Amino acid sequence: MSRTITRRMANVKPSAVREILKVTADPSFISFAAGNPSGDLFPVEALREYSLDVLANPASLQYSVTEGYQELRDLVSERYGRGYNLKKPGDDTIIVSGGQQGIDLAARCLLEEGDAVICENPSFIGALNCFRMYNAELVGIPCDEYGMLLDELEVALEANPRVKLIYTIPTFQNPGGTTLPLERRRKMLELALKYDIMILEDSPYFELSFDGTFPPAIKSLDDSGHVIFVGSFSKIIAPGIRVGFVIAPDWLTSKMTVAKQGADVHTNGVYMRVAAEFLKNYDVDAHILRCRTLYKEKCGLMLAEMEKKIDKRVRWTKPGGGLFIWCELPADKPSAGLCETLKQQKVAIVPGVAFDTDPDNLANCGFRLNFSVPSNEQIISGIGLLAEGISEYLDK
Amino acid sequence: MSRTITRRMANVKPSAVREILKVTADPSFISFAAGNPSGDLFPVEALREYSLDVLANPASLQYSVTEGYQELRDLVSERYGRGYNLKKPGDDTIIVSGGQQGIDLAARCLLEEGDAVICENPSFIGALNCFRMYNAELVGIPCDEYGMLLDELEVALEANPRVKLIYTIPTFQNPGGTTLPLERRRKMLELALKYDIMILEDSPYFELSFDGTFPPAIKSLDDSGHVIFVGSFSKIIAPGIRVGFVIAPDWLTSKMTVAKQGADVHTNGVYMRVAAEFLKNYDVDAHILRCRTLYKEKCGLMLAEMEKKIDKRVRWTKPGGGLFIWCELPADKPSAGLCETLKQQKVAIVPGVAFDTDPDNLANCGFRLNFSVPSNEQIISGIGLLAEGISEYLDK
Repeated sequence: MSRTITRRMANVKPSAVREILKVTADPSFISFAAGNPSGDLFPVEALREYSLDVLANPASLQYSVTEGYQELRDLVSERYGRGYNLKKPGDDTIIVSGGQQGIDLAARCLLEEGDAVICENPSFIGALNCFRMYNAELVGIPCDEYGMLLDELEVALEANPRVKLIYTIPTFQNPGGTTLPLERRRKMLELALKYDIMILEDSPYFELSFDGTFPPAIKSLDDSGHVIFVGSFSKIIAPGIRVGFVIAPDWLTSKMTVAKQGADVHTNGVYMRVAAEFLKNYDVDAHILRCRTLYKEKCGLMLAEMEKKIDKRVRWTKPGGGLFIWCELPADKPSAGLCETLKQQKVAIVPGVAFDTDPDNLANCGFRLNFSVPSNEQIISGIGLLAEGISEYLDK
Repeated sequence: MSRTITRRMANVKPSAVREILKVTADPSFISFAAGNPSGDLFPVEALREYSLDVLANPASLQYSVTEGYQELRDLVSERYGRGYNLKKPGDDTIIVSGGQQGIDLAARCLLEEGDAVICENPSFIGALNCFRMYNAELVGIPCDEYGMLLDELEVALEANPRVKLIYTIPTFQNPGGTTLPLERRRKMLELALKYDIMILEDSPYFELSFDGTFPPAIKSLDDSGHVIFVGSFSKIIAPGIRVGFVIAPDWLTSKMTVAKQGADVHTNGVYMRVAAEFLKNYDVDAHILRCRTLYKEKCGLMLAEMEKKIDKRVRWTKPGGGLFIWCELPADKPSAGLCETLKQQKVAIVPGVAFDTDPDNLANCGFRLNFSVPSNEQIISGIGLLAEGISEYLDK
């Protein structure tokens, strides 16, 4: 009795990505398996300066209100809410401990056992596992090089009366690297309204656009209160600070705040203030331009090397931003087998099954490549080794 | 459909304490309603120095492993696990985002809908609300000036086959200020073994003992793997950093780690390292002695003033440490009415109903006083005003 783990937890496996990261701690491996932004881009000097300033005020170390440090809420409402038209009448902004917590709190408030969540297939493993922890059913929708297929979405909505939420990463998707076009965004919103379903728009990457452009957020298109926007400072400041935000209708943010009281009381008070200083005093857009420029270069290099070296039977996305390229082997070649082969070449990738809404789908033939972490030299030699391993695997 | 809040959240009200804190933002109020440690004790200079050191290493800003920064885990295992005999064979230590998250993750792994949780009545509202969010039934056990009544515990265990967890704050309880004697600790453990129930021992205050003594943790008495120990740096460093820890059997910590992946990925990486620096380089015991000395003085002053001024029909606990004194009005005088009266005197307390396992028990005649936050002058004048309000209320 005492050792019985809940069903919600019994169903969830540790993240395969995290397990792979442990393996690739071996420095002789070249890893394309990361999900991290580049550490070279962290604004360390500014964070040191702001930390000292913030710590001069002992209030930064005291308990604070659950919904977040008010000045940061205001700055987020200004930059994102007003700047990107994400905050609508009746909406509120709360600060969360990273985008992951935004997903978790929304799920806690919205997902009853047995409810279904629609998501892109493949999708972000952290979100999928979170929904599984609420005993929700995952309904994966196939994607093409532009993201979710909206005809398939409509079929799924029609077939599943218990769908409560559509979870989407529309811009520079993880792991797909895809960007949902404006017309599909409008259509997704239209379907959400038709079936009266909330959309959880997870958008940690949108500012990492290589050319500075991206379609409007789904949230910005909605005036009916059907979209929850989850944003993050993990990719434009640093993930280790665990600061993100949610902009959503206030009937929901008020409940998410109550949920957060039970989850962690509030987000780290020093770093809520450091993030506020960053938004107020740093040249945020110049910093984001530096990030975009570096990632554009790395992604371009990786795609060029892939074009030169990788077997033509493999297909891959051409991301407009973000951190990831998604590849697909021919349909009869599961990527888990490729990962095995690549142990010889000492190259790490994440096999598609890790992002599959069916965690046992060993037939998944996709895999994810990260270009933000490896050096240019590692990209060049690693793609060579990957190409070798792929040829060996496909001709086996 | 889209706006339907889950049952788990519909049942939970925002914390009454937090609502009261908003009211008492009025600086003309004297507040005994806080749950905060004294900001005067925060080791600000050390935290500034450690922050700078830690930020020199960009790894502090990158994603890190979910179970926590290894050096901090080791230091916690050393100080608490070995030093207080909390870590047994088969146990592991994980870092969490404050003790509250330790409670939440344990609940996520252990509480199935309809399971019952035994707790002291009154108890910590943050834990009670957390259990409510898992649709658990709360079974409150009456307390005397030493804490939970163990005969009543046995009756409850016998009567409730769905009890899955005993939640207890045995040392300097919140809100009771009580300390469970060694014999009752042994008895509680014996009952937990007899009924094969886990004990969740929440112990954020034990180091704040006025005379430096406290009974051994229940966890230290157990060699059968039935106790989960939740500790916190909120009271000995600062609550705003949101760093705590859990020492528990590894079959549970491994599942709690998976749960934490879905909750917030990991705790703020800078402050996990700052906490490690604090344990390594600061004179922690001298610092705790400063905390203990200040709180002993403030508690002593408050008790002396109460003795002099407050109506003899009111009873209160004499805490050996921690942050709180618990008072009880005569049985026919609910404390919610006293709070109303005290608006005239401009003194804030937290009425007992806020800590009651029955959140609608308006007959609750207890209330909580905090002595760590008010100045000595505020304690003297505030207890005078409280005494006035009490007399007025009792004679009404």
